[in-house]
Amino acid sequence: MQLSDTDQKYLGLAIEQAEIGWGEGGVPIGAALVHHGKDGDKVLAVGRNRRVQMGSAIRHGETDCLETAGRLPTSVYRECTLYTTLSPCTMCAGTAILYEIPRIVIGENQSFEASEEWLLSKGTELVIAEDATCVSLMERMMTERPEIWAEDIGVETSDLRPSEPTA
Amino acid sequence: MQLSDTDQKYLGLAIEQAEIGWGEGGVPIGAALVHHGKDGDKVLAVGRNRRVQMGSAIRHGETDCLETAGRLPTSVYRECTLYTTLSPCTMCAGTAILYEIPRIVIGENQSFEASEEWLLSKGTELVIAEDATCVSLMERMMTERPEIWAEDIGVETSDLRPSEPTA
Repeated sequence: MQLSDTDQKYLGLAIEQAEIGWGEGGVPIGAALVHHGKDGDKVLAVGRNRRVQMGSAIRHGETDCLETAGRLPTSVYRECTLYTTLSPCTMCAGTAILYEIPRIVIGENQSFEASEEWLLSKGTELVIAEDATCVSLMERMMTERPEIWAEDIGVETSDLRPSEPTA
Repeated sequence: MQLSDTDQKYLGLAIEQAEIGWGEGGVPIGAALVHHGKDGDKVLAVGRNRRVQMGSAIRHGETDCLETAGRLPTSVYRECTLYTTLSPCTMCAGTAILYEIPRIVIGENQSFEASEEWLLSKGTELVIAEDATCVSLMERMMTERPEIWAEDIGVETSDLRPSEPTA
């Protein structure tokens, strides 16, 4: 769907992170956490997948972003939007549910989708941007670095969907 | 249920981590990841909740353990058991589902339970130990450090269940 100018701006921060991650040799997925307070919006943190950069099993875009945001009061999470360039995996969706983040803006869900039904069942509002830049980032990833992508989503490279460019 | 001697041994490693975490001023939840290979069992990593110690929003016992284990081939996770002193939150359950860890031994689920139905629906084998030491660790936590416990599970202190000792 067409994003509001505000959502597009914050999704842009996540895309910027994804592109930095790609340049570092990593998985190009980025995120941003934005608090909607009485005095307006505040970007609490941005983050990116750092599997390669940090040798990490848990630093996906969303979790890296939340880790950079640090320990926050529960009430803050409940007034936030999480922006991510790709539909969350179960780990990242579970993190959003843990902290009751009420709204997630998702760059695209064509390349990967594993948690949206669950998030919706928990009352999370999902906005799917169908953003062409986000799709391109993942297409390049799956073409040029399929082994790392498979590792990142817990599948064998041979298990990647036939519809994906690596087939 | 009564654990096998082997499961009790590895759960013991998780309990040891939980006790270290309590001594550090943290949340007393620990974990261990054990690979069941052709040549026998191998402890790949242990971990503990480090919310307080590292100012972390994502280092629960299980995720800290998986982070310490580092990047592993998908095939390895699928031959592992994850031991944890407390029933996994949605973040940690989502991480186990992401990596298709087939079996989780849970110290206790009386103090907290948020993901077992979901894990079972994904085919994860769950073994609930009902371990008295694990229960005691959490009872002490909820009595002496309720604010940190509430923060760790994304609720307000006032939202902690009336049946809990903080009421």
